[in-house]
Amino acid sequence: MMMGADIENGNLGPYQDRPRTFPNMRSKPYAPVIFRILRGINVRVLVILLLLGFGYVFYIGASTSPIIVFVFTVCIVSFLLSIYLTKWVLTKDEGPPEMVQISEAIRDGAEGFFRTQYGTISKMALLLALVILSIYLFRNTTPQQEASGLGRATSACITVAAFLLGALCSGVAGYVGMWVSVRANVRVSSAARRSAREALQIAVRAGGFSALVVVGMAVIGIAILYAAFYVWLEVDSPGSMKVTDLPLLLVGYGFGASFVALFAQLGGGIFTKAADVGADLVGKVEQGIPEDDPRNPAVIADLVGDNVGDCAARGADLFESIAAEIISAMILGGTMAQRCKIEDPSGFILFPLVVHSFDLVVSSIGILSIRGTRDSGVKAPAEDPMTILQKGYSITIVLAVLTFAGSTWWLLYTEHAPSAWMNFSLCGLVGIITAYVFVWITKYYTDYKHEPVRTLALSSSTGHGTNIIAGVSLGLESTALPVLVISISIISAFWLGHTSGLVDETGSPTGGLFGTAVATMGMLSTAAYILTMDMFGPIADNAGGIVEMSQQPESVREITDVLDAVGNTTKATTKGFAIGSAALASFLLFSAYMDEVSSFAREPFKQVDIAIPEVFIGGLLGSMLIFLFSAWACAAVGRTAQEVVKEVRRQFIERPGIMDYNEKPDYGRCVAIVASASLREMIKPGALAIVSPIVVGFLFRVLGHYTGHPLLGAKVVAALLMFATVSGILMALFLNTAGGAWDNAKKYIETGALGGKGSDSHKAAVTGDTVGDPFKDTAGPSLHVLIKMLATITLVMAPVFL
Amino acid sequence: MMMGADIENGNLGPYQDRPRTFPNMRSKPYAPVIFRILRGINVRVLVILLLLGFGYVFYIGASTSPIIVFVFTVCIVSFLLSIYLTKWVLTKDEGPPEMVQISEAIRDGAEGFFRTQYGTISKMALLLALVILSIYLFRNTTPQQEASGLGRATSACITVAAFLLGALCSGVAGYVGMWVSVRANVRVSSAARRSAREALQIAVRAGGFSALVVVGMAVIGIAILYAAFYVWLEVDSPGSMKVTDLPLLLVGYGFGASFVALFAQLGGGIFTKAADVGADLVGKVEQGIPEDDPRNPAVIADLVGDNVGDCAARGADLFESIAAEIISAMILGGTMAQRCKIEDPSGFILFPLVVHSFDLVVSSIGILSIRGTRDSGVKAPAEDPMTILQKGYSITIVLAVLTFAGSTWWLLYTEHAPSAWMNFSLCGLVGIITAYVFVWITKYYTDYKHEPVRTLALSSSTGHGTNIIAGVSLGLESTALPVLVISISIISAFWLGHTSGLVDETGSPTGGLFGTAVATMGMLSTAAYILTMDMFGPIADNAGGIVEMSQQPESVREITDVLDAVGNTTKATTKGFAIGSAALASFLLFSAYMDEVSSFAREPFKQVDIAIPEVFIGGLLGSMLIFLFSAWACAAVGRTAQEVVKEVRRQFIERPGIMDYNEKPDYGRCVAIVASASLREMIKPGALAIVSPIVVGFLFRVLGHYTGHPLLGAKVVAALLMFATVSGILMALFLNTAGGAWDNAKKYIETGALGGKGSDSHKAAVTGDTVGDPFKDTAGPSLHVLIKMLATITLVMAPVFL
Repeated sequence: MMMGADIENGNLGPYQDRPRTFPNMRSKPYAPVIFRILRGINVRVLVILLLLGFGYVFYIGASTSPIIVFVFTVCIVSFLLSIYLTKWVLTKDEGPPEMVQISEAIRDGAEGFFRTQYGTISKMALLLALVILSIYLFRNTTPQQEASGLGRATSACITVAAFLLGALCSGVAGYVGMWVSVRANVRVSSAARRSAREALQIAVRAGGFSALVVVGMAVIGIAILYAAFYVWLEVDSPGSMKVTDLPLLLVGYGFGASFVALFAQLGGGIFTKAADVGADLVGKVEQGIPEDDPRNPAVIADLVGDNVGDCAARGADLFESIAAEIISAMILGGTMAQRCKIEDPSGFILFPLVVHSFDLVVSSIGILSIRGTRDSGVKAPAEDPMTILQKGYSITIVLAVLTFAGSTWWLLYTEHAPSAWMNFSLCGLVGIITAYVFVWITKYYTDYKHEPVRTLALSSSTGHGTNIIAGVSLGLESTALPVLVISISIISAFWLGHTSGLVDETGSPTGGLFGTAVATMGMLSTAAYILTMDMFGPIADNAGGIVEMSQQPESVREITDVLDAVGNTTKATTKGFAIGSAALASFLLFSAYMDEVSSFAREPFKQVDIAIPEVFIGGLLGSMLIFLFSAWACAAVGRTAQEVVKEVRRQFIERPGIMDYNEKPDYGRCVAIVASASLREMIKPGALAIVSPIVVGFLFRVLGHYTGHPLLGAKVVAALLMFATVSGILMALFLNTAGGAWDNAKKYIETGALGGKGSDSHKAAVTGDTVGDPFKDTAGPSLHVLIKMLATITLVMAPVFL
Repeated sequence: MMMGADIENGNLGPYQDRPRTFPNMRSKPYAPVIFRILRGINVRVLVILLLLGFGYVFYIGASTSPIIVFVFTVCIVSFLLSIYLTKWVLTKDEGPPEMVQISEAIRDGAEGFFRTQYGTISKMALLLALVILSIYLFRNTTPQQEASGLGRATSACITVAAFLLGALCSGVAGYVGMWVSVRANVRVSSAARRSAREALQIAVRAGGFSALVVVGMAVIGIAILYAAFYVWLEVDSPGSMKVTDLPLLLVGYGFGASFVALFAQLGGGIFTKAADVGADLVGKVEQGIPEDDPRNPAVIADLVGDNVGDCAARGADLFESIAAEIISAMILGGTMAQRCKIEDPSGFILFPLVVHSFDLVVSSIGILSIRGTRDSGVKAPAEDPMTILQKGYSITIVLAVLTFAGSTWWLLYTEHAPSAWMNFSLCGLVGIITAYVFVWITKYYTDYKHEPVRTLALSSSTGHGTNIIAGVSLGLESTALPVLVISISIISAFWLGHTSGLVDETGSPTGGLFGTAVATMGMLSTAAYILTMDMFGPIADNAGGIVEMSQQPESVREITDVLDAVGNTTKATTKGFAIGSAALASFLLFSAYMDEVSSFAREPFKQVDIAIPEVFIGGLLGSMLIFLFSAWACAAVGRTAQEVVKEVRRQFIERPGIMDYNEKPDYGRCVAIVASASLREMIKPGALAIVSPIVVGFLFRVLGHYTGHPLLGAKVVAALLMFATVSGILMALFLNTAGGAWDNAKKYIETGALGGKGSDSHKAAVTGDTVGDPFKDTAGPSLHVLIKMLATITLVMAPVFL
C-alpha cells in the first residue's frame, strides 16, 4: 500500500476540513477596487455623495426630456427593489458548517478567477481604448459633426468615454451575477432541507436581483450618457448637433459592453465546460462515480465554473444584448424621425429606453409573484417548479403586452401618421410572439418529452458513434424552424412598419426598418424575467452540488435535482431567446452601420452588392470567421479538459484512498489548472473576432484605393458582417440545440429508459453530453456575443475602412 | 448448444460456397437497357451505325467550327484509348475461385442497387422534365430569342432535350465508374498475389478508363449539343440567334447532370457509409474482429458500398462538375465577347472545351506513364505507390501548364487586346496553383504525418468525448486556409482578367469574370488524372476486402493495405479539389444567372443588395438549406446504420457459430436492408435541395408582385444561392476534413501509437472514425454536388421567379 506516503493531511474524516484553494486565491471574499473604495468611505458621506450624484443626474435628465426622468425613476426604484431582494436572500441561513465550507471554496475559486480574468480584460480594454482614441483623432469628421462644431478631439473623447463606461458596466453586470450566485447557492441548499418552495423562491429572488441590476444598468447607463451628451453638447440649440444624430455617439457604449461580454463568455465558458468535461470523463465514465461526488478532484472546479461561466458570463451577455439593441433602435428611430421631419423626434429615439423601463416594472411583478409557502411545512414540492416559473412568466408577458401597447401610444403617436403607433404595437406583438415560438421550438428539440431527444436517446443504444451522428444531425436540423420564424417575423415587422403611414419628403414609406427594431424590442420586453429564469439555473445547479458534496439525505437531493432539471430547461430556452434577439439586433446594427458609413463618406451607401467579387469574398471570410471562432472555442475546452483529465487520473492513481473516502482530493489544483488554462485559451478566439473585421476592412480599403473602387473596404466589411451574422445564427443554433439535446438524452436514459444508468446506452449518451458541453456552453453562447460584437466593432471602427 | 438448429447449410468449410445475395438481385451481370439493345444488334450493323453517327457528328462539327472538329477528334481518340485500357484490365486473371465468388457477390449487390437506384432517379428525371417543359411553354421569351425567331415550343424542347441528355450522360458516367470497379477489384486482388506494382497498375488503369470516359463524355456531350444547335438553329445567319447567346441553351445539360449526380451521391453515399458504420460498430467495437473479416455479416454490403458510393457517385459528381464549369465558362465567354465586340467570339466560347480536350491528352499520358514491372518478380513494393502516382501527376501537371498556355494563345488571342492571352494564361496558372495548394492543405489536415491529426489522436487517449470535440474543432478550423486561398485566387484571377485589356464600348474593362472562369478551368485542367487517382481508392479498398475475405496470406494483405492507405489519401485530396472547383464554378454560374435574369426580365439585373430585408432573408434561408440538407444526409446514414447494427447483432446472437467460422453469416440480408433504406433515405434531402429554391423564388416573386418590388423573387434566389454556396463550401470543408482526420487518427493509432489496436485510445478513435464516415462520404460530397445543382437549377428555373 502506498497510501502512507500520499497522505498529506492527518485528518481523514469525510471532508470536514476546509478544502484548500489554489495559492494565488485569497481566502477572504474578494471585492473589486471600486467596491473596496466605496466601503472605505463613511456611510453618511457616501449617502450624501450618492444623493448629490442622483440629484445631478436628475437635473440633466430634466433638462433633456421628461421621458428621461421617467426612465431614471424606474431604474432607481428597481435598484432599490434589487437591494431589497438581495437583503432578503442574505438573511437566509447558510446551513451547517460543511455546506458553508464548500460554498466558501466555490466562492474563493469564483472570485479569484473573476479577478484575474477581469484584470486581463480591463488591460485589453484600456489598450483598445487607446487604439480607438488614436483612430478617432486622425479620422475624417462627418458633415453633421462639422455643422455642430464637434471637433475631432471631442468626438474621440466621447467615443472612448462611452466605450470605457460600457466596458465598466458590463464588468459590473458580470460581477453582480457572480456575486449573488456564490452567496445564494448555499442558502438554496440549506433551504432545500426545509422546503422546496422556499429553495425555489431564494433562487428566483437571487436571480431576480442580478437581472434587475443588469437590465437597469444597461438602461440607466445609456440614459445618463444620452442626457449628459444632450446637455454638454447643447444639442438642438442653433448651430449645434441635432438630437437625431445623438444616438450615433453612443455606439462606443455598445462596443465596450460587447467587448467585455465576449471575453467574459469565452473565459467563463471555457472554464465551466473544461472542468465539467474533465470531471465527467474520469468521474462518470472511467470511475463510475456520480456527478458532484466529493471524491472527484475536479468537482469544486466544476461548481466554480457554473458561477463564472453561466452567471457572470450570461449577465454580461444579456447586458450587451440589451445595450446593443437599445442603441441600434435609437439610431434607427432618430434616422427615421429625421427623414419623416417629425417635430419632436425624442419619442422615437427614447422609445427603447421606455420599453426596457417597463420591462423592469413587469418583470419585478413577475419575480415577486413567486412566493414561498414556508408555513405549509411540506418538504416535497407541492407544485412543479416549472409551472410556478411559467405562471410568473405568463403574468409578466401579459403585462408586457399591455405596457408595450401603452408605450407605443405614448411615444410613437405622431400627427403625420395617426395610426402608426398601432402598427408598431403590432410589431411589438410580433416580437413577443417570436420569442414565445423560439422558446417552444427550443423546448421541442431539447426536451425529452418530445420526439427528437427520444430518437437521439434510442441512437445511443447502438453505440457512441451513432449517438454523435444523431446529435449532430438533430442540431443541424434544429436550425430550420427558427430561421423560418425569424424570416417571417422580420418580413412581417418590416411590412407593418412600412405601411405605418410614416413617409419621407418624397412620400415613400420609411418605417420598415424601425418596425423590425420595434419587434426586437418586443422580443426583449421581458428580458429581466428571462434573465431571472436563466440565472436560476446555475444557482440551482450549484445548490445541488453543495447538497451532494456535503452528503445530505436523499430527500434534500431530490429537491435540488428537480430544481436543477428545471434550471436546465430554462437555460436552454434563454439561449433560443438570446439568439433570436441577436439575429434581429444585428440586422438593425447593420442598417446603423450603413447610415454611419454614408455620413462619414459623404456619399450614399445604400447597397451591399454581393455580385462584386471582393464583396462576395468579404462574405466568404465572414462565414469562415464563424467556423474558425467556433473551432478555437471548442478546441480550447477540449485541450483544457484533457489537462483536467490527466490531473484527476493522476490524483486517483497517486492517492488510492480517495475512492474509499480515506483521503481528500486536491480540489485546488484542478481549479488552478482550469483557471490558468481558460485565461490563456480565451485570448486566441477573442483576438480573432476583434482583429479580423478591422484587418479585412483595412486591406480592402487599400485594395479599393489602388483599383479605383471607392468604399470597397466598407462594402466588404458589410458583407463580412452579414454573412457572419447568418452563419453565426445557424452555427449557434446548431451548437446550442445539439448540446442541450445530448444533455437531455442522457437525462432521459438516467430516468431508467433504454437500460438506465450504467448501461452501454448510458455510456454512449454520456459521450454525447460531453461533446455537447463546449457546444452549448462555450462556443454557442460566445457566438451570440460575437455576432453583436462584430456589429458594434464595425460601427466604431468604420473610420478605418473609409 | 443451439448451433444445430441454426445451421442451414451442410457445407461448413470456410466460405467456399458462393455467398447468397438478396432475393431481388439477379445473379447474372446486369447491364442497362441501352447496353443490352446495343449488344443485341449485329456487330457489323453496329459498326456501320456508329461510323454513320460519327460521320454526321463530324459533319455538323465541321459546319460549326474547326475547333469543334478538334474536340471531337480528341474525345474519340480518348474513347479508343479507354477501350484499350479496359481490354487490358479485363485480360488480367481473376484469381482463385474463392476470390471470384466474393467478387461476384459484390458485383451482384452493386449492380442490383445501381439498377434500382437509377430506376428511381430516371423516373424523377422524367417527371422533372415534364415540369420544365410546362414551365418553358408558358414562360416569357427573351429579346434575343424573339430576334432569332426562337419560339417557346422550340426553346422548351431544347431545354428539356439538353436536360435529359445531361441526365443520361451523368447516369452513364456513374455506371461506367461502377462497371469497371466491380471488375477490376478482383483482378487487383489477384495481381497483389504476384506483384505490388502490377496491382497498382491495374487499379490505375481501371480508374483511368472511367476517368477518360467521364471527362470525354462531358466534353463531347456539350460539343455535340453546341454543334447541333448551331446547325439546326442556323446560328449567326441573318435574322437568327447570335453565337454568343448559344451557350445559354446548354444549361439544361448541366442541370440534368447535377440532378442525377445529386441523387447518385446521396443514395450511394448513404449506402456505403451506413454499411461501413454498421459493420464497424458491431464488428470492430463490440466483437473486436478486424475490418472486412468474413465473419461480419455486413462486410459484403460494405464492399458493395465502395463501388456504388465512391466509384459510381464520384463519376457522376466529377461529370457534372466539369459540365457545369464548361457551360458557365462558355456563357461568360460569350457575354464578354459580345460586350467587347470581338468579331469571331467562337474562340472565347469554345475555350473550355479545348482545355478539357487537352486535359484528356495530358491525363492519358500521365496514366500511361505508370507502368508495371512484372518481370522483376518482386512481391513487396519497390517504390511507395504514392510516389509513383505523384510522379504521374507531376508529368500531367507540367504538360497541362504548357497546353494551357498554348490554348490561351490559340483561342484567346484577339487584336483588341494583344496581350490578353498572356493574362489569361496567368489566370490558368492561378487555378493550377490553387488546386495544388488545396491538395496540400487537405493533406496537412488529414495526414497523420502532420500536427493536426497527431493532436487529434492524442485527444483520443482521454476518451470518446475529447476525441469528438477535437475532431469537430479540427474540421471547423480547417475551413480557414482554403477560404483564404480561394479568396486570393478569385481576386487575383479577377484582376488579371480585368487588366487584360479587353474593354467594352464605353472603354471599361470587362475581362474580370472571364479571368475567374479561366482560373476555374486551370484548376480543372488535370481533372481526368485527379479522377483516376480518386477511382483508384475504392478499387484498392475493395481489392483489400476481397483479399481479407478470401483469407489470403499476410504478404498479399500487406500489399493491398498499402494501396488502400494511398487510396485514402488520394480520395481525401480529390475532395479538397472538388470543393475548390465547386466554389469557383458556383461563382461563375451565379454571374450567368444574373445575365439570364437580365435578359428575361428585359431590365438590368446587376446587383444583389443584401441590405433589403427580403434579400437578407433569402440568404438566411440559403444557409439554412445547407444545414438542413447536411442534417438529413447524416441522419439518413445514422438511421440506416442502426438497422444494420440490429441485423448484425441479431445474426451473431441467432447464429453463434459465425464467430467460430462454423456458420456462414447472411450477407445478402444486410445488402438488402442497406439498399432499400438508402433508396428511401435519399429522397428527402434530394427533394429539399430541388424544391426549396423554386418555392422560395416563387413565394417572393408573388410577395414582390403585391408589394411593388419588381424582380424580388430573382433577387431573393440570388441571395439564397450565394449564401448557400458560401455555407456549403464551409460545411463541406468541415465535414470532409473532420472525417478524413478521424479516419487517419485511427489509422495512426493502429500503427501502434498511443497504445495501438485494442487500447482505449483506439476505441475512442474508432468512434471518431464512425462519426466521420457520414461526414466525409455522404454529407460532404453531396454538398459539392448540391452547390452546383443549386446554381444550375436557378438557371433553368429562372422563369418561375420572374
